[in-house]
Amino acid sequence: MHYIKKEQAIYAMDKNNTAAASVNSGDRIVFETYDCFTNQIQSEKQPVSKLDWNQINPATGPVYVEGAKPGDVLEVFIEKIDIGDTVTLMTGPELGVLGDELTEISIKRAKIQNNLIQFSENIEIPLNKMIGVIGTAPIGEAISCGIPDLHGGNMDTTAITEGTTLYLPVNVEGALLALGDCHAAMGDGEVSVCGGEVPAEVTVRVRVLKNCPVPTPFLIRDGHLSTIASKPTLDEATVDATKNMVKTVLTYTSLKKDEAIHLLSLAGNLKISQIVDPNKTARMELPIRYLTALNSEEWL
Amino acid sequence: MHYIKKEQAIYAMDKNNTAAASVNSGDRIVFETYDCFTNQIQSEKQPVSKLDWNQINPATGPVYVEGAKPGDVLEVFIEKIDIGDTVTLMTGPELGVLGDELTEISIKRAKIQNNLIQFSENIEIPLNKMIGVIGTAPIGEAISCGIPDLHGGNMDTTAITEGTTLYLPVNVEGALLALGDCHAAMGDGEVSVCGGEVPAEVTVRVRVLKNCPVPTPFLIRDGHLSTIASKPTLDEATVDATKNMVKTVLTYTSLKKDEAIHLLSLAGNLKISQIVDPNKTARMELPIRYLTALNSEEWL
Repeated sequence: MHYIKKEQAIYAMDKNNTAAASVNSGDRIVFETYDCFTNQIQSEKQPVSKLDWNQINPATGPVYVEGAKPGDVLEVFIEKIDIGDTVTLMTGPELGVLGDELTEISIKRAKIQNNLIQFSENIEIPLNKMIGVIGTAPIGEAISCGIPDLHGGNMDTTAITEGTTLYLPVNVEGALLALGDCHAAMGDGEVSVCGGEVPAEVTVRVRVLKNCPVPTPFLIRDGHLSTIASKPTLDEATVDATKNMVKTVLTYTSLKKDEAIHLLSLAGNLKISQIVDPNKTARMELPIRYLTALNSEEWL
Repeated sequence: MHYIKKEQAIYAMDKNNTAAASVNSGDRIVFETYDCFTNQIQSEKQPVSKLDWNQINPATGPVYVEGAKPGDVLEVFIEKIDIGDTVTLMTGPELGVLGDELTEISIKRAKIQNNLIQFSENIEIPLNKMIGVIGTAPIGEAISCGIPDLHGGNMDTTAITEGTTLYLPVNVEGALLALGDCHAAMGDGEVSVCGGEVPAEVTVRVRVLKNCPVPTPFLIRDGHLSTIASKPTLDEATVDATKNMVKTVLTYTSLKKDEAIHLLSLAGNLKISQIVDPNKTARMELPIRYLTALNSEEWL
């Protein structure tokens, strides 16, 4: 078991980052993570002017996975997300969907009790724990941890949670996996610009796959496979997620392209991950049982 | 009970349409509907060149509701959707998300047996019956039944189904309700450009509401309220759906605007209805229990 402390934080996914640890394919790793504000906000009354905006969206890591080579896929099984007892929320001018209607920064803190966020006197919100930032080093320039793209990153996808298996590209030797930005709860869309931000401890198992033909990033959860795409607009992201699912259907069925499209129009669900980051993120979800030629022994 | 036959079809929602029937608030109505091709396609082998493209997306109606005045809201409870036994699907060049990758029109027909669409030898797809086109006459120019907008129309929203209560604006005397384009199944997104198109019989109950402050169109289903918005881009549609939900939260809670936004970021789910019509449609779904001051006796 490997334990990576939160002080091993990076603010960009970068092939030149120094590895915080080296692990083998099959190993279990615990990542201790800051919240997305690097735990800077401890009170609603705290003056926002004191916030260091360079310390937003840290990810713990990166972890070097032995044997991971460019072209492989890194399988990350999310075993457990343990979270802190208080969530922090922020919104304000130029932040999120309603940024044009707000005149000042609003910070809210709320306690978690009995697995419910105590939002107000008469509103309690159930937890749906998830990981906001998770990715590998990109092949080219470093990418800020606030940006989602082909390498993963700030995908803010509610389906990246306990029990999910996420598949990320290996772009550089060792993959350089990092993660952070956990949420106690978030709605699809993340419309304020953040979820219920919490520090956390995340336990994962990693495995290097040499033969996985599905376009990354994607995930498997509850009998469904979801392709994930991030683009400057949500419209573009939905197109990419759909096209990646068509490729997957063509690989794992005997359907022709037009038939694959008919299938997805009937049974594929396009979903919104987030619409507030520099790239927007969408996913397409399909029951795995329709991928009739997928041999799960092969790489699952 | 009123029965409107499918031959009472319109191809645009228009304040100048002649009413097919006149009903009272509280009445039950059965709409017999063509499929979205006006039942023109009866075989996969049929030459596409013979298709009359002016007969796409008919809606049955319109129905004049006595007492409905501009500014009111028309409540439409969807009691039952009875569908035919065969679905028709079509995709092709310039149609749907993959229209740029196809070189010819593809038509597929599939039987429904045991509530499953017999898609291929080893793929059966469960039904999720829904209404694609449903709306009232707009205040201004006529709007083609293929286009979704503030009046409803071609919203292609999977949540518009049996057991749902839909709320539409009354823009003209009598509202002029029409509906059609039923689907035996459809995934969120409707990526091919159509769902599993079927003729149907739809039973609804209508009621005129004089005091409903939620921005229309919206729906209530399974303890959730969903605001619906259609715009030229999905990005714009998600913004409108979110802003309409913020207004709803401000009306039915004591939360301030920044707190309402925090709530939606934690617990509001943005969803995709369709991304293939001239306007794209998104919805935001929120558990009704968070609308703590909503008095359901008032208008529900």
